[in-house]
Amino acid sequence: MIIAVSPIGTIRSAFDNAESGGRQPSIDGQKGEIVLNDEFSDGLTGLEEFSHIIALYYFHRQAEVRLKARPCFDPNIEHGIFASRFPTRPNHIGISIWSLSKIQQNILYCDDIDVLDGTPLLDIKPYVKQFDHREDPRCGWYDSVDWGIIWNEIKVCDMEEIN
Amino acid sequence: MIIAVSPIGTIRSAFDNAESGGRQPSIDGQKGEIVLNDEFSDGLTGLEEFSHIIALYYFHRQAEVRLKARPCFDPNIEHGIFASRFPTRPNHIGISIWSLSKIQQNILYCDDIDVLDGTPLLDIKPYVKQFDHREDPRCGWYDSVDWGIIWNEIKVCDMEEIN
Repeated sequence: MIIAVSPIGTIRSAFDNAESGGRQPSIDGQKGEIVLNDEFSDGLTGLEEFSHIIALYYFHRQAEVRLKARPCFDPNIEHGIFASRFPTRPNHIGISIWSLSKIQQNILYCDDIDVLDGTPLLDIKPYVKQFDHREDPRCGWYDSVDWGIIWNEIKVCDMEEIN
Repeated sequence: MIIAVSPIGTIRSAFDNAESGGRQPSIDGQKGEIVLNDEFSDGLTGLEEFSHIIALYYFHRQAEVRLKARPCFDPNIEHGIFASRFPTRPNHIGISIWSLSKIQQNILYCDDIDVLDGTPLLDIKPYVKQFDHREDPRCGWYDSVDWGIIWNEIKVCDMEEIN
């Protein structure tokens, strides 16, 4: 079964080089824009009242599928691709939660975009705390990461290491 | 630009009828399974240490695209599709956060699946609190929903009304 999807817009970001990218919005996300194709503008009604959106997008610079990966947050150990957010996943679909600053016509201004410039957008969903927050989740190997050190690093990971 | 994606597994749920479906995991999700295609099993390594997963799936019973919708949580007002989780969205991709009970070989047992039986799976990501939690988000019209009443309702929405 093949499902055909089409980009509904394009993401403009500070990461304009295939060799670099943000790791996560909360770590090194940068201001950027989602340019939604005009024909979908009616779908934005009411979205300006949300502080955060969930963007679904296509990892367009990542052709490879690899079921085990060494994410940059723990590069010494191979993790299953479904236990990481690494881009070499089947179907190459990524998700990120971005802080929505304002909407002007079909352009959404966000504060913490973490994807490459030119990334094709597949969907926008509102972040809803009743649906998207879980209290005290167990997060596997991520629970052993020293986030204090990571948040103090400014450097941008190599594209190969994102997530 | 057309992007071809392929299901990597199938979701088995209690909602076996196209006229009914769950609304959200936290509201009327039910026990069910994700049956991952065998060839992707290696990608599960380490996922058993996570309490929650984010599933991406295809709304396979929803052919229509409608940019404004009346979600069942607020059926009196039309909301933009990108300000709701309604399934009539371009590309028909849904996401849900499910509680992971156990993994046996290529089968993931979850406690609160909210999609139709037979839903094609597109991706599994680990739920990571450092990436996926936002403190005190503004959630637009969802902030006016009386969740107490909704959580006390047992009824299952009509498929047309999901989210």
